[in-house]
Amino acid sequence: MTSIDLNSDLGESYGAWAMGDDAAMLAIVSSANVACGFHAGDPVGILKTVRAAAENGVSIGAHVSYPDRVGFGRRDMDVTSDELIADVIYQIGALKGLAASAGVTVGYVKPHGALYNRIAHDPKQGQAVIDAIMAIDPSLVLMGLAGAPILDLARKSGLAVVAEAFADRAYTPDGQLVSRREPGSVLHDTQAIARRMLQLAKTGTLEAIDGSTIKVDAQSICVHGDSPGAVAIAQEIRRTFEADGIMVSSFLKA
Amino acid sequence: MTSIDLNSDLGESYGAWAMGDDAAMLAIVSSANVACGFHAGDPVGILKTVRAAAENGVSIGAHVSYPDRVGFGRRDMDVTSDELIADVIYQIGALKGLAASAGVTVGYVKPHGALYNRIAHDPKQGQAVIDAIMAIDPSLVLMGLAGAPILDLARKSGLAVVAEAFADRAYTPDGQLVSRREPGSVLHDTQAIARRMLQLAKTGTLEAIDGSTIKVDAQSICVHGDSPGAVAIAQEIRRTFEADGIMVSSFLKA
Amino acid sequence: MTSIDLNSDLGESYGAWAMGDDAAMLAIVSSANVACGFHAGDPVGILKTVRAAAENGVSIGAHVSYPDRVGFGRRDMDVTSDELIADVIYQIGALKGLAASAGVTVGYVKPHGALYNRIAHDPKQGQAVIDAIMAIDPSLVLMGLAGAPILDLARKSGLAVVAEAFADRAYTPDGQLVSRREPGSVLHDTQAIARRMLQLAKTGTLEAIDGSTIKVDAQSICVHGDSPGAVAIAQEIRRTFEADGIMVSSFLKA
Amino acid sequence: MTSIDLNSDLGESYGAWAMGDDAAMLAIVSSANVACGFHAGDPVGILKTVRAAAENGVSIGAHVSYPDRVGFGRRDMDVTSDELIADVIYQIGALKGLAASAGVTVGYVKPHGALYNRIAHDPKQGQAVIDAIMAIDPSLVLMGLAGAPILDLARKSGLAVVAEAFADRAYTPDGQLVSRREPGSVLHDTQAIARRMLQLAKTGTLEAIDGSTIKVDAQSICVHGDSPGAVAIAQEIRRTFEADGIMVSSFLKA
Repeated sequence: MTSIDLNSDLGESYGAWAMGDDAAMLAIVSSANVACGFHAGDPVGILKTVRAAAENGVSIGAHVSYPDRVGFGRRDMDVTSDELIADVIYQIGALKGLAASAGVTVGYVKPHGALYNRIAHDPKQGQAVIDAIMAIDPSLVLMGLAGAPILDLARKSGLAVVAEAFADRAYTPDGQLVSRREPGSVLHDTQAIARRMLQLAKTGTLEAIDGSTIKVDAQSICVHGDSPGAVAIAQEIRRTFEADGIMVSSFLKA
Repeated sequence: MTSIDLNSDLGESYGAWAMGDDAAMLAIVSSANVACGFHAGDPVGILKTVRAAAENGVSIGAHVSYPDRVGFGRRDMDVTSDELIADVIYQIGALKGLAASAGVTVGYVKPHGALYNRIAHDPKQGQAVIDAIMAIDPSLVLMGLAGAPILDLARKSGLAVVAEAFADRAYTPDGQLVSRREPGSVLHDTQAIARRMLQLAKTGTLEAIDGSTIKVDAQSICVHGDSPGAVAIAQEIRRTFEADGIMVSSFLKA
Repeated sequence: MTSIDLNSDLGESYGAWAMGDDAAMLAIVSSANVACGFHAGDPVGILKTVRAAAENGVSIGAHVSYPDRVGFGRRDMDVTSDELIADVIYQIGALKGLAASAGVTVGYVKPHGALYNRIAHDPKQGQAVIDAIMAIDPSLVLMGLAGAPILDLARKSGLAVVAEAFADRAYTPDGQLVSRREPGSVLHDTQAIARRMLQLAKTGTLEAIDGSTIKVDAQSICVHGDSPGAVAIAQEIRRTFEADGIMVSSFLKA
Repeated sequence: MTSIDLNSDLGESYGAWAMGDDAAMLAIVSSANVACGFHAGDPVGILKTVRAAAENGVSIGAHVSYPDRVGFGRRDMDVTSDELIADVIYQIGALKGLAASAGVTVGYVKPHGALYNRIAHDPKQGQAVIDAIMAIDPSLVLMGLAGAPILDLARKSGLAVVAEAFADRAYTPDGQLVSRREPGSVLHDTQAIARRMLQLAKTGTLEAIDGSTIKVDAQSICVHGDSPGAVAIAQEIRRTFEADGIMVSSFLKA
C-alpha cells in the first residue's frame, strides 16, 4: 500500500500571541515541524504542541531558524558557520528536552523560512546545518526541498534525508518553486490542489506553471494551517488520499 | 581519602560581550555551572565552554534561569509553574544538546540568581523546578543552598541533591547567608577564605558572623571567576585542599 | 456638555503575530494606549497603529511595561528604580519618535500589566515611573487606577494625572477591583456594562459587587478590543453615551 | 583655526556585560556614537553614557543597528524598507528620550556595523535610513563613510551629512577601506596612525596601501576605545592634533 507524509509548521504561537490551528492540523498531518524558539514558540507553548503531537501519534521535527523572532525567521542573515552550527544544536536540543518530557522523540529537522531557502542552494550554510545535526544526533533525518542540492550534500555527509513538495505552490518547468512575487505562484483551489497532490503521490509528477509535466521526487507534502482556508485544503488532501487508498503516514514509520 | 567538589558559574559571556575567565576556572573547579541562554550564554559561547569543560574533565551542570538577559537573571519574577517547568526543560535540553555534540553529558542542575534564591524557600517555584528536572531526566542532580528547604523537597520527589556552601560569604548563626546588603557579608581575605573552606571540608563547620560555630552540610563549594581576585581565591582554596590531602572532585564521580 | 474619555490597549501585535482589532477600536475610543516594544509591539507595527490613531484623531499614550515580551508584561518583576526609570524613558522616547514621524505627539503614559498593578500601590516603583516621566517630558499626563495612591504621588511630584475605571470589572465595596481570581470579577453583559458606565459618567458612582453604591472618580474608561465580544461592548458603551448626550473625547482635549 | 571631529562608538555595554572604556574616550572624542539598544546598550547603561557625554560636552549621535543583539549588529540582514525605517525611527526616538532626560540633544545618526557597510553602497536600505531620519527629525546629520554613495543620496534627500575616515584602517588606491580579511588592513603603530591622521586633517590626503597618495574628504575621524591600546591611539591622535594647533571639535558646533 502506498503511503505519503503530510507535514505542517506548528507550535508557532509565542507567549500571548496565537498562530495557526495546531489542534486541527494535528488531526490531519503525520509530521509536525515544531518551532524551537528562535523564530517562534516559547517553551510553554512548544511543550503544549509537543504533547498534542504525542497524543495524536504525529512525528516531531525540529523547525530550526535564524535567531530572528521579530522577523519570524524570514529574513536572510549572514551568520557564520560556527554560529549556525551552535544555534541549530541549541534548538534541536531544546526541542529534544521538551519532547523527552512528553515521552516522545524528535525524529527529523526542517530548517525554517529564510534558512530553509538559503541552505537549499548555499553549501556553506547547508553544511553547517548538516554538521550540527551530525554532531547532536546523526539518526535525525533532514527534511529539504525536493530537487535541491542540500539533499545530496546531506546524503554525502551520512544523513538520511526526506524531500518535500509544497501543496499550494506552483513549480517552474525545471522543478523549482515559482517565486511568491510572481503571479500564480500560490494555488488556492482546494479541489485542484488535492488532485494535484494525488498525482504527485501516485506518479511522482506535477504540472508545472507552463503546463508541462515535471518529475518531483517527494516523500512528504507540506500543508499549512494558518487560516481556515489552509486547514480546509489540508483536510481535502488527506481525504482525497484516503479515498484513493493512499495512507498518510510519517516517513519515520516506514 | 576525603574529597569535595568546587563549582563555578561559567559560560556567561554573550555574543560580543565577555564575562569571567572560563579557561582559568576550568583548571581549578571540578564542576561547571554552564549558562543556558536565559540569563547569559549564546549557543556558540556555551558550546565553547562545554568543549573546554570536556577537555578539562570538569562536570557540567545546567545553570538555568528566569528569562531575563538584560537583568542577568538577578530579578525576582512571578512566573507560573507551567512557565517555569517549560523554561527549565528547554534550557536543560538545549545544554544537553550542546553537551552531546561535545561528547559529554549534563550531570546536574543549578538554578541561577534570583531563581536560586527564590526556590531555596518558595515551595511552589521549587516544585516546578523539581518537576521539570524529573520530566526531562530524573538522573540529574539538583544543586541547592546548604540547609535550605528545597533540598528536602527535591529528595521527597525522588531527585538526588547536592548541597553547596559559598566560599566568600558570611553566614548567620542559624546557617543562612548574611544578606549582601549587610556589612561583612562578602569575604575578601584569600588566606582566611581558604582556611575557612578547609575547616568546612574537614569538619562540616564554619564560623558564623557572630563568632559562633555552625554546622554546614555541603558537598560542593561555590567559587567565583569574575575577577583576577576571585580566580586567586579559587586557586588558593584548591591549593590548600590539596596540601591537606583533600581531593577536588566532582560529586558526580563519587 | 459632559464628556468622558474611552481608552484601549492598542499596537499589541508583534512581528508576524496579530493581536486585537486596532482598526475597529480606533473608531470607538478617544485615547490609544500604544505598546512601546517591551511587552508588545515591534517598530513597524507600532508605527502603523500610531498612523491609524493620527488619522482617527485619537490621542496617543505610551503603554510602558516591564521588559518581558514572552510574559506580555504580566509578571511582577523586582526591577531597581534606576532600571525602571531608564526603561520607561526609553519606551516613551521610542514612541515619541514614531509619533513625530507620523506628525502627532504622545500625550500621556499608562503603565501596562504587572507594572500598572504594582505602581498602583508600590511607592518605590511608582516614584520611579513618575521620575521617568518628569525627566523626559513633564507635560505628559499619567493615567492610573482610580482611587489608587499612585495618583496622589504623581500629583505631589507635579504631574497631571487622569484616573480610569474598567468597564468590564467588578468593584469591591471600598472601591478596589475584584481580583480576577474571584467569581464575578469580570462582567460580560453588554447592556449592563453600558448602563453601568453611563451611571459612572453621569454620577461618578458604580454598584459594587455587594450591591452597595460606591464613588469612583474617573475621567477615562478602559475598554478592550481583543475579541469580537469586547469590541461589541466598547461600541455599546459609546453608543449609550452618545444617545445620552455624553461626548466621548480625550481628556487631553478638554 | 582648523578643527576636526573625533568620534567613537560608546554605550556598548549591555546589562551585566561591560564593553569599552567610555569614561576614557569621553575625555578624548568630540562626538559619541551611542548604542540605541538594537546591537548593544540597555536603557540604564545608555542613560549613563548620555549623562557622561553631557558632562564632557561631547556631541551625541544615534548609533542605530539591525535588530541583532547576539550578533552585535555585525551580520547583514535582508530587512524590508518599512522595517528598517521603523527600526531606525524607534532607536533614534529612544535615544532622544534618554538625551532629553539628561538635558541634551541627539545631533546626528551613524548606522552601525553591517547596516553601516550595507547602506554605504545599497541605495534601497540607504534610502530607508534617510527616510527614517527625515521623518523623525530632518535636522539630524547623517554620518557616513567618506567617499561612499550614501552621502550623495542623503544630500539629495535634503539631509546634512558628515564624512568620516577610520584612523586605524588601510585604504585602497581608489579610496575604499581595505577589507579586514586582507593583510595590513588594520594599523597598529600609534605614532604612525597619529601622523597619518594629522596629514588627513591638514591636507585631506592619506597614503593608500600601495604607497600612492589619495584624497579622503572627511570631517570626522573614527577612533576606538575597546582596548587599552585603542584608547592610547585615540589619545595620541588628539595630542598630535593639539600640538599642531588643530582643535578637536564636534562638526555640530562649527
